[in-house]
Amino acid sequence: MVCAHSRVLLPWRHQQRPFSNNKILVEMDESTGVAVMKIKNPPVNSLRLELLTEFAISLEKLEIDRGCRGLILTSASPKIFSAGLDITEMCGKSTEHYEAFWRAVQEMWLKLFGSNMVTIAAVNGSSPAGGCLMSMCCDYRIMADNPKYAIGLNETQLGIVAPFWFKDTMMHIVGSRVTEQSLQLGQMYPAPAALKIGLVDQLVPEDKVQSTAAAVMAQWLSVPDHARQITKSMIRKPIIDRLVKQREADINNFVSFISKESIQKSLQVYMDRLKQKK
Amino acid sequence: MVCAHSRVLLPWRHQQRPFSNNKILVEMDESTGVAVMKIKNPPVNSLRLELLTEFAISLEKLEIDRGCRGLILTSASPKIFSAGLDITEMCGKSTEHYEAFWRAVQEMWLKLFGSNMVTIAAVNGSSPAGGCLMSMCCDYRIMADNPKYAIGLNETQLGIVAPFWFKDTMMHIVGSRVTEQSLQLGQMYPAPAALKIGLVDQLVPEDKVQSTAAAVMAQWLSVPDHARQITKSMIRKPIIDRLVKQREADINNFVSFISKESIQKSLQVYMDRLKQKK
Amino acid sequence: MVCAHSRVLLPWRHQQRPFSNNKILVEMDESTGVAVMKIKNPPVNSLRLELLTEFAISLEKLEIDRGCRGLILTSASPKIFSAGLDITEMCGKSTEHYEAFWRAVQEMWLKLFGSNMVTIAAVNGSSPAGGCLMSMCCDYRIMADNPKYAIGLNETQLGIVAPFWFKDTMMHIVGSRVTEQSLQLGQMYPAPAALKIGLVDQLVPEDKVQSTAAAVMAQWLSVPDHARQITKSMIRKPIIDRLVKQREADINNFVSFISKESIQKSLQVYMDRLKQKK
Repeated sequence: MVCAHSRVLLPWRHQQRPFSNNKILVEMDESTGVAVMKIKNPPVNSLRLELLTEFAISLEKLEIDRGCRGLILTSASPKIFSAGLDITEMCGKSTEHYEAFWRAVQEMWLKLFGSNMVTIAAVNGSSPAGGCLMSMCCDYRIMADNPKYAIGLNETQLGIVAPFWFKDTMMHIVGSRVTEQSLQLGQMYPAPAALKIGLVDQLVPEDKVQSTAAAVMAQWLSVPDHARQITKSMIRKPIIDRLVKQREADINNFVSFISKESIQKSLQVYMDRLKQKK
Repeated sequence: MVCAHSRVLLPWRHQQRPFSNNKILVEMDESTGVAVMKIKNPPVNSLRLELLTEFAISLEKLEIDRGCRGLILTSASPKIFSAGLDITEMCGKSTEHYEAFWRAVQEMWLKLFGSNMVTIAAVNGSSPAGGCLMSMCCDYRIMADNPKYAIGLNETQLGIVAPFWFKDTMMHIVGSRVTEQSLQLGQMYPAPAALKIGLVDQLVPEDKVQSTAAAVMAQWLSVPDHARQITKSMIRKPIIDRLVKQREADINNFVSFISKESIQKSLQVYMDRLKQKK
Repeated sequence: MVCAHSRVLLPWRHQQRPFSNNKILVEMDESTGVAVMKIKNPPVNSLRLELLTEFAISLEKLEIDRGCRGLILTSASPKIFSAGLDITEMCGKSTEHYEAFWRAVQEMWLKLFGSNMVTIAAVNGSSPAGGCLMSMCCDYRIMADNPKYAIGLNETQLGIVAPFWFKDTMMHIVGSRVTEQSLQLGQMYPAPAALKIGLVDQLVPEDKVQSTAAAVMAQWLSVPDHARQITKSMIRKPIIDRLVKQREADINNFVSFISKESIQKSLQVYMDRLKQKK
């Protein structure tokens, strides 16, 4: 996708950024105006506070770069797009930490769902919870055609709850009935099922995910930017405004929920189970 | 479904309940935490004021019973789930009666649509109008795979109108386009068509409706209650609040509509036609 | 469709109407209560200010005619239903003209989307932009089964933007996900694709479009008018009210957008391209 005469543009990589661990790799193709952003946080691309902060700053930089019109979001690790929010960030930490973490999750959503760029998720592996949210924020989702990969908001399975803006994002894509059942059950959809309900737009063989994303992107970029952007904003702004208006209440809600002893216990049980699996 | 070591728990059956005609049969399986509620009002399970009141009270008792986590709603009469609101309750009665009746219909909806339990409709027969509403209030709908059974909100066919909260309930499940066409035409969907538009979730042979409901229930109950309940409420509360906020206006609206001479006439015509059929 | 004993009723044709160029042909069948309205503005049924005004007045007359219960909207020119808003009305004109034009587009939408009649679009040809809007306003859409005919809101392809009420109308029919993608891309759907996403309800051979419209109309007219009308209004009024409340702001928005030099330029480019094609 990055053709011969393009060059990798990462000027801000050279600035001192204490938050950065280079978990967000950005390749910008000047000839097409398309950036490819790869999440690189092995083994499962968990969304930690640091990573989310780096993500938001990287995205912001692309957003203000007039030469960048499209973003392909994908994973640097095959088989997993992102395992979602890192549970260790929500377990046994301080109230302040929970607050900072949740604000960063909100920021990721606000920036990605509200992006002026064309955003395409190249879902090259499983994508539960926060990983599903990220891909749902994009304008288009291409998933590797492998029934072993699944996508969905499975929060209730962990005893936690997807907040209203996760719900709004899913409802925007698959409607209220499928969203309600998905969220109540914490349902994960194998790729073919995800296509069937419209949670992803297209399945392609694993080795074609990136090239298909580039081809679809070219089609989207053939539309005049300003008209496309106004259109996108007209549709998404009401959804975004709902969180903007109650952002602090949503943080308080999360912090008080996650701080409950019962919730902490059930997250601990879940983490212990994960460790035993390893 | 009610296994050997379970016992039928109906403590309130022994209390004096002047409203009760035992038209709502409840079997509670303590081992699974699942109650089966059967509507028994032969020949067609018409929803009379008495029955609706008994239904609301029975549901309320299950709701506050911490041992009860799931409800399967079905009919005691094969071939008919419920024929819907009893037209005789809306014909030739006093204003006070219409008011009490409509309040009971609202109450049924508020309690069932807003239930904290997992609710599954085992639709073992036809289910027009109010019967369709009841099944739409549940979290999941299993219907007998028989094209002779039909389901839908057919109010306009009778010259009456499904109120906004019937409409909201249907829109929640099948979206606005299908809802608009269904409601304008008063369309009844034979089971296969109902599945196709998503009005029911699953068709199974008639003799498998109850066992399938039990199996699906077990799956839903594998999700932690508190997370599932918060999720359900997050999605349904805005819909419920709309009626709560204008409940009295909705009653007045119904009473003044149903009291119109022209409406009374067309209901009378409809009833006369039904009688001739018999 | 117009049967032997019907007569064409166009009393207002004999009045002096300075706005009228007879671009809207109306045939009323008294025996069925169904009017057929044909748009006749060769070569492509562009929606000019004059035509829109004539349309609104004709519709208003049918609306107040108690004998008229249903409207079939179609094109007098085979192959094209309507090419949509006439771009020459938005290019190189005065602010006052843009304002009058946009008010007429709004009026068309308000009257057609809000009609008390059963409205069926007999889409006998391609139907981009404003043409798509007109057909989406109807209760039911029958399209000629010809993959050369396409329908959709393709505004962004021209560098302009479908306003929120175009978007609301489409969302009402195909949901938010399909609407967002369609509007961002300015996507035109060939007839089979339009059927698949639900943008039209039925495809029939080209020579059966009118007769099918008549048959479907008969089915819709079998429902008591008053119940159907209240139902339709209950669903559409909230959508209509959104424009009514901000009608002037919407006009100002359009006028200031369309007056921009950059927009004028891109419309000019588009028109030049169209001329070269001829």
